[in-house]
Amino acid sequence: MSDQPILSVTVGDLARCIGAVARGDEALRIKGLAPLDTAGPNDLAYVAEPKYLRQLGQTRAGAVILTQKDADAFSGTTLIMDNPRLGFARAAHALRPEQLPGCGVHPSAVVAPGACVAPTAWIGPLAILDPGAVIGEHVTVGPGCYVGSGTTISAHTRLVARVTVLAGCVIGERCIIHPGAVIGSDGFGYARDGAAWVKIAQIGRVIIGNDVEVGSNTSIDRGALGDTVIEDGVKLDNLIQVGHNVHIGAHSAVAGCVGIAGSAHIGKRCMIGGGAGIGGHLAIADDVTIMGKTSVTGSITEPGIYSSTMSARPVTEWRKNAVRFRQLDQVVRRLMKIEEKIKQMLPGEHFE
Amino acid sequence: MSDQPILSVTVGDLARCIGAVARGDEALRIKGLAPLDTAGPNDLAYVAEPKYLRQLGQTRAGAVILTQKDADAFSGTTLIMDNPRLGFARAAHALRPEQLPGCGVHPSAVVAPGACVAPTAWIGPLAILDPGAVIGEHVTVGPGCYVGSGTTISAHTRLVARVTVLAGCVIGERCIIHPGAVIGSDGFGYARDGAAWVKIAQIGRVIIGNDVEVGSNTSIDRGALGDTVIEDGVKLDNLIQVGHNVHIGAHSAVAGCVGIAGSAHIGKRCMIGGGAGIGGHLAIADDVTIMGKTSVTGSITEPGIYSSTMSARPVTEWRKNAVRFRQLDQVVRRLMKIEEKIKQMLPGEHFE
Amino acid sequence: MSDQPILSVTVGDLARCIGAVARGDEALRIKGLAPLDTAGPNDLAYVAEPKYLRQLGQTRAGAVILTQKDADAFSGTTLIMDNPRLGFARAAHALRPEQLPGCGVHPSAVVAPGACVAPTAWIGPLAILDPGAVIGEHVTVGPGCYVGSGTTISAHTRLVARVTVLAGCVIGERCIIHPGAVIGSDGFGYARDGAAWVKIAQIGRVIIGNDVEVGSNTSIDRGALGDTVIEDGVKLDNLIQVGHNVHIGAHSAVAGCVGIAGSAHIGKRCMIGGGAGIGGHLAIADDVTIMGKTSVTGSITEPGIYSSTMSARPVTEWRKNAVRFRQLDQVVRRLMKIEEKIKQMLPGEHFE
Repeated sequence: MSDQPILSVTVGDLARCIGAVARGDEALRIKGLAPLDTAGPNDLAYVAEPKYLRQLGQTRAGAVILTQKDADAFSGTTLIMDNPRLGFARAAHALRPEQLPGCGVHPSAVVAPGACVAPTAWIGPLAILDPGAVIGEHVTVGPGCYVGSGTTISAHTRLVARVTVLAGCVIGERCIIHPGAVIGSDGFGYARDGAAWVKIAQIGRVIIGNDVEVGSNTSIDRGALGDTVIEDGVKLDNLIQVGHNVHIGAHSAVAGCVGIAGSAHIGKRCMIGGGAGIGGHLAIADDVTIMGKTSVTGSITEPGIYSSTMSARPVTEWRKNAVRFRQLDQVVRRLMKIEEKIKQMLPGEHFE
Repeated sequence: MSDQPILSVTVGDLARCIGAVARGDEALRIKGLAPLDTAGPNDLAYVAEPKYLRQLGQTRAGAVILTQKDADAFSGTTLIMDNPRLGFARAAHALRPEQLPGCGVHPSAVVAPGACVAPTAWIGPLAILDPGAVIGEHVTVGPGCYVGSGTTISAHTRLVARVTVLAGCVIGERCIIHPGAVIGSDGFGYARDGAAWVKIAQIGRVIIGNDVEVGSNTSIDRGALGDTVIEDGVKLDNLIQVGHNVHIGAHSAVAGCVGIAGSAHIGKRCMIGGGAGIGGHLAIADDVTIMGKTSVTGSITEPGIYSSTMSARPVTEWRKNAVRFRQLDQVVRRLMKIEEKIKQMLPGEHFE
Repeated sequence: MSDQPILSVTVGDLARCIGAVARGDEALRIKGLAPLDTAGPNDLAYVAEPKYLRQLGQTRAGAVILTQKDADAFSGTTLIMDNPRLGFARAAHALRPEQLPGCGVHPSAVVAPGACVAPTAWIGPLAILDPGAVIGEHVTVGPGCYVGSGTTISAHTRLVARVTVLAGCVIGERCIIHPGAVIGSDGFGYARDGAAWVKIAQIGRVIIGNDVEVGSNTSIDRGALGDTVIEDGVKLDNLIQVGHNVHIGAHSAVAGCVGIAGSAHIGKRCMIGGGAGIGGHLAIADDVTIMGKTSVTGSITEPGIYSSTMSARPVTEWRKNAVRFRQLDQVVRRLMKIEEKIKQMLPGEHFE
C-alpha cells in the first residue's frame, strides 16, 4: 500500500535475490515497482506477455525483468530469467517486505478469558476472540475480526480486517484472509418434513492448509458431519461460495464469483474461471481448467480445459439463434428425414 | 460445533424422539453423529441415498437410521422410518441441543438509549443496537452485529455474528442469520437525468417471517416503496442477492450465488439451484424447481422443473459447436430450402 | 426508512421543486410517497410504465406524476413532466431529506492518533480509523466501519455501516457505500513457481469518483501496480466483484452479482445486467448494454445491446435440445453434404 516504506536494492543484489542474471548497470539502486509505461529511472518493471514488448522502446524504467529471448530487443539494464512474472513477485517481496503491525493486543479488542494468544501475535482494534480461540506466533488478527471458540489460527497467518472465523475451525500457516470472508458458517442442509424444512445440524469443521489465500466476501461453510477441506497453497478470489464438505486440492486457484456446491471434490492444481458453477457431489480430476462462467454438472475424470460458455453477441443476432435452439432436436430429426429421402433417391451412394 | 457437549440417549428413547421404530439393542447409548464410514460404536448414522448402502456392510456405527426396505440388508441396530434424513435432523437436535449463550448484554456492546432488549436476550461483544431497535425474548445478537433504528428481531431468532440489519425491518421468530448477511440495504433504483442517475429513495422495509434462515454474505434489499417480503420457512444459502420488493413464498429454498432482481415474485415451496438468475418484475408459480445456473427471463406459470444450463465439455469440442450456434438461424433456413427442393423432386411424397 | 420525519409540501411547491406542471388542487399538502395501489389522499404516486396506467382509475393517491400523454386519462391532481420517475426521485428527496446523524465522534469509535476528521463529520459507534485516514466535511462513517491508513473519504460521502475501506484509497464526494462492501482488498495476482503460486504484491489503489454508489457485500480490489478506477456517477449494485485495475467509465450502472475480471475497461454510460461476467483485459465501448447473465469474453467496440443468455425451459425440452447442441458441428457438416448431393441431382439449379 502506498505508505509502506520502500527499501533500496542494487540491480546486482536484486538479481541474486530473485534468481535472475543481471545485464547492464548492476550498481543502479532500485526503489520502486511500476508498469513499463509509468516506471521511472529507479523503478523495476517486467514483461510477461508479448503484447507489452512494444512498450520496451519507450520505457524509462531503471531495469526490466525479461526472458533471454525478449532481452535481445532491449538495450537497458535487464534482469534475465525464464519467468519474469515470478521474478517480479519475488522482487516485490524484497523491496516491500510486509509491514507487521508489531505484537500485542489493542486495548479495544475483546479477548475472552480462555483465549490463547501467542506473545508475538497482534490483535487489532475491536477484534473479538472467543474462549478457546488459539492465535499462533506472528499471527495478525486485524481490526474488527472475530475468531470463534476452539478455532486455531496458525503461525504467520494474517486476518486482514473484519474477517469471521466461526467456532472449531483450523487455519494453517502463512494464510491471508481478506475482509468480509466468512469461514465456518453453517452448510445448507435440511430434511423435508411435509412442506417445511428441518435444519440438519452442521457439526463438521473447516480445515484450511498452509499458504492459502481467501478473498474478500468469500464464504466457506463448515462440514455437515465431516469437514470442509482446503489444502495447502489454494488461492480463492472474492465472493466465492464453498459449500459444506467441499474438498479443494493443493495449489488450485479459484477466480471470483464461483459457486462450489456441497461435497464437490476438486483436484490439485486446478484452475476455475470466474463465475463458474461446480455442482454438488461430483469430482474434478487434478490439473483441470474450467473456463469462466462454465457450469460443471458431472464429474470430470481427465485433465484438460472445459467450457460451457457462450460469448456475448448483438442481441438481435443472439435472439434469432436462441429461438432456433429451442427447435434444435426437431431440426436434427428433419435433417435425418431428409437423409433418408436422399438415400431413396440415390440408393447406390454411400451416405454419411 | 466441535466443543459442544454431547448428550447420551438410548436407541429406544431416540426412536421415540424422532418417530422411528427401533430394531436391535434399544438400550445402547448413542453419544454422537457421524457418517457411515467413520462412525464408532456409540455413533448414529443414516442412509438417505442408495449409493451409500454398500457402506452398510463395513460400518462400525452403533445404530443406523434406514427405511424399512433398506433395513432388510442390515443386521445391526436400526431405527426404521420413511425419511431417514428427517430422522437424522431430529436426532441431531436431540443429541446436540443448541447452546444458548445465556442472557444479558456484553459490557462491550453499544446499546443506544431507546433500544429495547428483552431480559432473556443475549447481546454479544461489540454488538450495536440503535435507538428503537427491539430485541425479543431469547434472541441472540452475536458478536459484532448491528441492528438499526426501529428494527424488530423476534423471539428465539439468532443473529450469529457480524450480521447487519438496517433500520425499520422486521425479522420473525426462530430465524438464523449468518455472518456477513446484510438485510435492509438500499435497492438499486435510479431515475435518468440526462447521462446521470438520480437516486430514488428506498423507503420500504424488509419483512422476514418465522423459521427463515439467511446464509453468510447474503444481501436482502429493502423495498423501494412497498416492502421486500420473505415468507415463513424460507431458506436462503450464502451470497444471494435479493433485490428490492422481491417476494419469496413460504418454504422456498434458494441455493448459493443466486441473484433475484427487483420485484420478482417467487411462489411457495420453490427450489432455486445455485447460481441461477431470476429476472425482475416476473412471477414464478408455486412448486417450481429451477436448475442451477439457469436464467429465468420470463414468468413461469406451471409447476415443474426448468433449466437453461449447458454442461461443461472439452473446450475444443465446445468451441466447434458454439461457433455453429452463431449460424443456427441460417442453418435452419438452409434446411428449409433443402426440404423445398426435395418436395420438387418427390412431388407425390408427404413431407412434414 | 420508516421512522424518518416526513415534511409536508403543497402540490404547487412540489411541482416547482421537481420541474413539473401542476394540474388540479395546487394547495393540497403531500406528506408521503406510495405506490398507486396503496397511496392515500396525502400521498404522491407516479406512473413510469404503461402497465401501471390501468391502476389510475382506482387510485386514492392525492396526486400522481404523469407524462402529458398519460395525464389525459386521469382526472385527479396531477404533476405533469416528461420523466415521472425522475420527478418522483426528486420529490422523495424534497419530502424525506436525508437525516444526518449530526457530527462528532462516538465514544466507542477507535480513532487512531494521526487520523484526521473534519469537524462536521460523524464517526459512528465502533468505527475504526487508522493513522492517516482523512475524513472530509459532512462525511458519515457509520457503525462498525473501518477506514485504513492513508485513505481519504471526501465531503458528504456516507459509509452506511460495516464498510471496509483499506489503506491508501480515495473515495470522492457524495458517495454512498453500503454495508459489507470491501474497497481495496488485494487483487488476485500470482506467479507460478512450479506447482505453487507466489503472490504478486498488490500495491495500487482504488480511486472512486464523485456520486458513486456501491452496494452491499460488493468487493473492489486495489490495483496491482496502477489503480482500479471507478469514475463519477457510477452505480454498483450488491455482491459485485471488481477485479484489480478495472476501469469503469462515468455513469455506468452495474446490477447485482456481476463479476468484472482484472484490467477490464468499461466505457461510460454502460449498463451491465445482473449476473453478467466480464472477462479480463478487454474493453467495452461507451453506451453498451449487456443483458443479464451474459458472458463477455472479447472486447466490444460498438454501442448497442449484447446477450449470450438462454432462457429457462421445461427441463425435458431443454435437455433434448442441449444434447443436440453437442452434435451441432456434425449436424452442419451433414447439412453441407446434403446440399452437395442435391446439387448433383439438380445440377442446373442455383443452390445457395
